Amino acid sequence: MAATLYGREQIARKTIAELLRLFYEKGWVAGTGGGICCSIGKDRVLMAPTGVHKERINPADLFLVDARARLIQSPRNRSLRLTECSAIFSLLIHRRQAGSVLHSHGLSAVLAADLAAGKNRVTFRDLEMLKGIQGLSNSDRHAVPVVQNTAREGQLVAQMEKVLDDPQFDRSFCILVKDHGAYIWGKDLWETKRHGEVYHFLFEAASARSARNPGR
Amino acid sequence: MAATLYGREQIARKTIAELLRLFYEKGWVAGTGGGICCSIGKDRVLMAPTGVHKERINPADLFLVDARARLIQSPRNRSLRLTECSAIFSLLIHRRQAGSVLHSHGLSAVLAADLAAGKNRVTFRDLEMLKGIQGLSNSDRHAVPVVQNTAREGQLVAQMEKVLDDPQFDRSFCILVKDHGAYIWGKDLWETKRHGEVYHFLFEAASARSARNPGR
Amino acid sequence: MAATLYGREQIARKTIAELLRLFYEKGWVAGTGGGICCSIGKDRVLMAPTGVHKERINPADLFLVDARARLIQSPRNRSLRLTECSAIFSLLIHRRQAGSVLHSHGLSAVLAADLAAGKNRVTFRDLEMLKGIQGLSNSDRHAVPVVQNTAREGQLVAQMEKVLDDPQFDRSFCILVKDHGAYIWGKDLWETKRHGEVYHFLFEAASARSARNPGR
Amino acid sequence: MAATLYGREQIARKTIAELLRLFYEKGWVAGTGGGICCSIGKDRVLMAPTGVHKERINPADLFLVDARARLIQSPRNRSLRLTECSAIFSLLIHRRQAGSVLHSHGLSAVLAADLAAGKNRVTFRDLEMLKGIQGLSNSDRHAVPVVQNTAREGQLVAQMEKVLDDPQFDRSFCILVKDHGAYIWGKDLWETKRHGEVYHFLFEAASARSARNPGR
Repeated sequence: MAATLYGREQIARKTIAELLRLFYEKGWVAGTGGGICCSIGKDRVLMAPTGVHKERINPADLFLVDARARLIQSPRNRSLRLTECSAIFSLLIHRRQAGSVLHSHGLSAVLAADLAAGKNRVTFRDLEMLKGIQGLSNSDRHAVPVVQNTAREGQLVAQMEKVLDDPQFDRSFCILVKDHGAYIWGKDLWETKRHGEVYHFLFEAASARSARNPGR
Repeated sequence: MAATLYGREQIARKTIAELLRLFYEKGWVAGTGGGICCSIGKDRVLMAPTGVHKERINPADLFLVDARARLIQSPRNRSLRLTECSAIFSLLIHRRQAGSVLHSHGLSAVLAADLAAGKNRVTFRDLEMLKGIQGLSNSDRHAVPVVQNTAREGQLVAQMEKVLDDPQFDRSFCILVKDHGAYIWGKDLWETKRHGEVYHFLFEAASARSARNPGR
Repeated sequence: MAATLYGREQIARKTIAELLRLFYEKGWVAGTGGGICCSIGKDRVLMAPTGVHKERINPADLFLVDARARLIQSPRNRSLRLTECSAIFSLLIHRRQAGSVLHSHGLSAVLAADLAAGKNRVTFRDLEMLKGIQGLSNSDRHAVPVVQNTAREGQLVAQMEKVLDDPQFDRSFCILVKDHGAYIWGKDLWETKRHGEVYHFLFEAASARSARNPGR
Repeated sequence: MAATLYGREQIARKTIAELLRLFYEKGWVAGTGGGICCSIGKDRVLMAPTGVHKERINPADLFLVDARARLIQSPRNRSLRLTECSAIFSLLIHRRQAGSVLHSHGLSAVLAADLAAGKNRVTFRDLEMLKGIQGLSNSDRHAVPVVQNTAREGQLVAQMEKVLDDPQFDRSFCILVKDHGAYIWGKDLWETKRHGEVYHFLFEAASARSARNPGR
């Protein structure tokens, strides 16, 4: 069993490094921004370091923390620091049973959040790709919450708790952060990748349609 | 002869896996969406599984079905499920003698379908790339049918039969599905790839020109 | 000397295949469109085949022709056909001493040609990248001719001869073809690659600026 | 110590070649434009050659110069010429203690500089990505200077000295050059890469938001 757990952790470490290279190519983690975490069993979570070029992270560069983001094991490279998103990652794991959370700095997320225009949400509709989000049909009007940006990432937690309590957002696997990006999650790394691709598609589609019909 | 058929099937399986990686890079099969099929002889068709990351499909992951999409052989990986597009794929193989069909979830297809603006078609014209579609010249006005999206993919069949019966669409190798994407076909995998590239070029060109001249 | 000529031809064949893969990634030769040629000595020119996926062309797939595009040597693969651009390639080699010509089907070329708006030229200005074109400074107003598209590629020759005779276009290494793309040349394959990148940059810059200032 | 210095130089040479391939893919050094330098110790700077395809530069192709850009060692390939940016690179190393400078010809830099609309600066605000610039918070209004283009790159120096003297630009690691591109620097190659990605994100975000709200 220990061997199995060890194997699971190693696969998760390699997959995280691989997905970060993919997300970099997509423009979601440029400029050392963005991040990712992955649960690897009860009370054990792998989190990416902050302030480093995300596409160059090695499997050994991840932090192992518990469910409250308290350090279990640091990477050997002592210059690495735990992501500032750790409190948000823990919140989403706890409140949404997320098995993995992607933090995207994609420009399309920023431009989609602008569409909220003072409201606390953006609604996506009339798109088959909605089916790519767990539990949705293509006829849903899918409300995604938008929170305001704060000076430090940890200060986002209070706003996030509020939208997680709001029933209108029960089915969202995404929280947009104005001027900043998005947190997107799923039951595991692969659902998170799928949700990441689907939500960024929704962001781009909504911006493109809004440009055609500004009043829509 | 059995050996030749076997070789043909293996080449088709490898080519499908390779083309799905290419189509993923182009944004046509993101978020596990989209799909592809390929006929490998009388009454034998390879179809991609649904609900999986399309760029990670292996040659062994494909379903072998007959002309009515009835299962001949499932992949060893028992978690895989046959694509929901199977009825549409069979329809296009039957009605248009398609040797291969691509189902694209590309955003440019969705935005091109929006240009129909209530009509049942989008017309592409004044583009050399029209020559890239079998049988067309660059002076053709090329009408591509647009059908309305449905809750399940199989429910598209009735609308598709109707546009396939409509003589104005006799020369189209594409059916656009509003809010969804496109079905694009050809006599074999390589013509389908060519038609895929040409139609997505037409989609992008039409959207770009429409943005410049909204009233055109 | 024969050995040297042979080596030069082999390098050109490999470089053409490599550049076609690069140009495919840039969207200049999608859907089997576009093409390239390269002079490899007096009265000997390599030309790409037509109607094939350009990014999959092998060094052995090229045609060897003389200065008037008459066949010297066909590729072993007898299904390949000489490019329809051959007469235009020969014209540009003859009239502009081009060592290589790229025929691009890039969408940005089509959209730039639209900016001519009935005139026979598009003028590019106020861009440092103009320096990337042989003989130009960044303060030049660079007039690029636009010809009308024809049913067959060979029919473009008459219009092209006319613009090549027109002194206002003496410094252009590019002819735009309305609704079609561009012919771009240079003294050798590498200058043609550079000119290709520079002209497509000019196309994109002009379209982006025109969208901001439609009346400019 | 000599060995250490030698090793540092070799790593810098390899990293420069690798980053130029990356920057080419991003469209920052197309058409042989753009460039890069890296300090490798007191009074020793590596600079890329001019007029060559930047993504094909080898580690051995760089020039070694002193702090005033006077030649210490030329590459073996005698056809290579020192970048015209050398005086600007030296200025930024001297005045801003830059350990590395990227010169980008990215279209997004040109379009961002257009936003200055006659002023000598563009101000970026309301973006988390501002944190990716050394010393900034996400609530800063970040003024980036814009200088006018000149016939030769060396003639930019006088304008650049002026903006480097201007206290409103003390915190900028970027100078935009109208119709041309940007100079972006950092304490070493990796901070320069990060700043390059962050500033180009700011350029794209500002242009996209300006298109939505032309009067903003």
